[in-house]
Amino acid sequence: MRLSRFFLPILKETPKEAEIVSHRLMLRAGMIRQEAAGIYAWLPLGLRVLKKIEAIVREEQNRAGAIELLMPTLQLADLWRESGRYDAYGPEMLRIQDRHKRELLFGPTNEEMITEIFRGYIRSYKSLPLNLYHIQWKFRDEQRPRFGVMRGREFLMKDAYSFDIDEAGARRSYNRMFVAYLRTFARMGLKAIPMRAETGPIGGDLSHEFIVLAETGESGVYIDKDVLDLPVPDMDVDYDGDLTPIVKQWTTAYAATEDVHDGSRYEHEVPEERRVHTRGIEVGQIFYFGTKYSDSMKALVAGPDGIEQPIHGGSYGVGVSRLVGAIIEACHDETGIKWPDAVAPFAVAILNLKQGASDTDAACERLYRELSARGVDVLYDDTDQRAGAKFATADLIGIPWQVMVGPKGLAEGKVEIKRRSDGAREHVALEDAIARLMT
Amino acid sequence: MRLSRFFLPILKETPKEAEIVSHRLMLRAGMIRQEAAGIYAWLPLGLRVLKKIEAIVREEQNRAGAIELLMPTLQLADLWRESGRYDAYGPEMLRIQDRHKRELLFGPTNEEMITEIFRGYIRSYKSLPLNLYHIQWKFRDEQRPRFGVMRGREFLMKDAYSFDIDEAGARRSYNRMFVAYLRTFARMGLKAIPMRAETGPIGGDLSHEFIVLAETGESGVYIDKDVLDLPVPDMDVDYDGDLTPIVKQWTTAYAATEDVHDGSRYEHEVPEERRVHTRGIEVGQIFYFGTKYSDSMKALVAGPDGIEQPIHGGSYGVGVSRLVGAIIEACHDETGIKWPDAVAPFAVAILNLKQGASDTDAACERLYRELSARGVDVLYDDTDQRAGAKFATADLIGIPWQVMVGPKGLAEGKVEIKRRSDGAREHVALEDAIARLMT
Repeated sequence: MRLSRFFLPILKETPKEAEIVSHRLMLRAGMIRQEAAGIYAWLPLGLRVLKKIEAIVREEQNRAGAIELLMPTLQLADLWRESGRYDAYGPEMLRIQDRHKRELLFGPTNEEMITEIFRGYIRSYKSLPLNLYHIQWKFRDEQRPRFGVMRGREFLMKDAYSFDIDEAGARRSYNRMFVAYLRTFARMGLKAIPMRAETGPIGGDLSHEFIVLAETGESGVYIDKDVLDLPVPDMDVDYDGDLTPIVKQWTTAYAATEDVHDGSRYEHEVPEERRVHTRGIEVGQIFYFGTKYSDSMKALVAGPDGIEQPIHGGSYGVGVSRLVGAIIEACHDETGIKWPDAVAPFAVAILNLKQGASDTDAACERLYRELSARGVDVLYDDTDQRAGAKFATADLIGIPWQVMVGPKGLAEGKVEIKRRSDGAREHVALEDAIARLMT
Repeated sequence: MRLSRFFLPILKETPKEAEIVSHRLMLRAGMIRQEAAGIYAWLPLGLRVLKKIEAIVREEQNRAGAIELLMPTLQLADLWRESGRYDAYGPEMLRIQDRHKRELLFGPTNEEMITEIFRGYIRSYKSLPLNLYHIQWKFRDEQRPRFGVMRGREFLMKDAYSFDIDEAGARRSYNRMFVAYLRTFARMGLKAIPMRAETGPIGGDLSHEFIVLAETGESGVYIDKDVLDLPVPDMDVDYDGDLTPIVKQWTTAYAATEDVHDGSRYEHEVPEERRVHTRGIEVGQIFYFGTKYSDSMKALVAGPDGIEQPIHGGSYGVGVSRLVGAIIEACHDETGIKWPDAVAPFAVAILNLKQGASDTDAACERLYRELSARGVDVLYDDTDQRAGAKFATADLIGIPWQVMVGPKGLAEGKVEIKRRSDGAREHVALEDAIARLMT
């Protein structure tokens, strides 16, 4: 992508309304624009990151055997009356009347609708286990939306729903999502730690939150530092096999948010030198809620004995749009964002330090053409900005590799490559630059 | 994908509420489920088609130089008051109040919001031309939603918006979208004919609808049959070059919907043997509306003379979810859907005609594994259904290639391959099947 043809509205000043670093950087880097309180437009740079995150979430859901569908944003109020949650949900639910005075709502979550879909088609335990997910915009009418996409009102969530004949099956489904989440967040370059959680309005009696560690995070966490070094299952993990040992390993060492922190257990179980008190951001939560929705909504299947019984369910959320903010909280410095490779909007930025000079133009065009031909996402800064402004923009928007092409270096046949993550720089011959960037 | 692990709820009976063939087939094939009037859940098979269509639309928008962003579904009512459309839009607009009694609406289109984004950042003609698009769910509260996804209330639309300094620039932007649309629909296997159209509530004085020809279409069309044989620009078309000749070629021969049909001109211009009266379905519409929104909403840029002037705009819509229905209207027979290759949910269906027999199981597994490894989307019918039911399902859901693996054929080392589009069948050796399917 040539920057001169892209739409990247960088802000020079730090917006006053932004209280946290990810919100400030997303506004400054031209990633989002607020359209109403807690409602954002995703500008092209922001959308590219959102799509990368979404793609990783989708791949790992598919790998774990979940099947994608797509439910609508609007739902019938009557559906929520069946489960009893229509009145219980409170003012966070956005209630709507259509032209015929039918009551709708903008879905904040989809337990009811997926249960309605399930019961419309599935009759027998033989169709189980089943895990259906979608990635769709949700709405929660927060009393005080803030922190940009971290606590927005319209937000993108991946929510999966599992259906099993009994609790043992449901726990296997739960474990599959547990492992998929470990993989999902690790692929994004994050340390996300599962922590035992309250179940809240979803209900049920087993739940884990996945908390990304970031010093600027929203809530305090207490962990045994051993948990930081646990191995993440690789892509060949057998989702049909027994995942209990992995889940056990990850849930044995102490890790808790301040809400559920048990100081005496912490001091008893974790030696002082292994105690880490830091902060974190919730990016996913998984629930086993048994027959809560299948009882009230009559989602029954015939068991092996022919007798109808309510299915055992779980639900599994990932805050896709929230992750964009969470990753920035975990990966930035004073000059801007430092995207992990897997979610970077572009892999490489080419900075033409003297736009209009025939030698730098030719070298940049060649790099741009050859990297693009190899499938690398390149942003070529071909604007008239001076070099200093180009450096600042590249640091701000956090592209992992910067290639600086200036007349001085080119006179010696060289370009400079900078790694955004650690600032490491090297001079390489123009003809070696591509090989260096492809490693 | 193994069918035993997929979620494909085929209906045996034809649903009574469905008036048109695409709606019937989408329900029967387990592609969609109605959640409220005009509001559908996309079940896994339907979603796969929707995503293929979306991907083609996106690729061709990007190729034509449009830049993707993503605006939210909800918008502030005040934004629409600026353009004067809030009151004018009528009961099709879904109006919403949030918990703080702020007036929102579920966006039916985005001229206002994109103009607000544009004016927030762009100050100079030097940033033009600019074309920004998104693919997002919209809502229009139809008085009487029907025909499934063809006239739903919640629907997926691609809408692009161009910004130019003057009418000449805007016409070039218009032509780029015109050509992109020719390519987009042709890639989906459709004959889509641009026809001069009324501008309606969007406004402006230049507009074309793109109409897919289908005998079951919603409106009558009159065309000069020469238009059916016009060449579609190939992928190397130069979007920076002069596209006028292509647009002229496609707009010279007579083609009109019954709304604007001019019988005397038709008879005068088109020799009787070239007159074709058929039916069609609108799948896209493009508009040039000049300064309609930039005047009222003050989207001004400085021209080369330094004087601020309103930009000239256009908007360009594709009905992404509607296209799923339109393609079925154009591509089906009495037994089911016949997907064009480019939008098929799977490329190949493997039908194990004797599930549980070691020879058919082994042959199917081998085909499934090897095709999948080559990146082919395969649906492997590994269910316990009898052969007849498997044939019927495969025909209904319209996968372009069916590979039938039965004990009789296998005894001679052969499988049968059927092409869904024309029913052509051939027996090939098991080891040649993959090569045959990859051609």
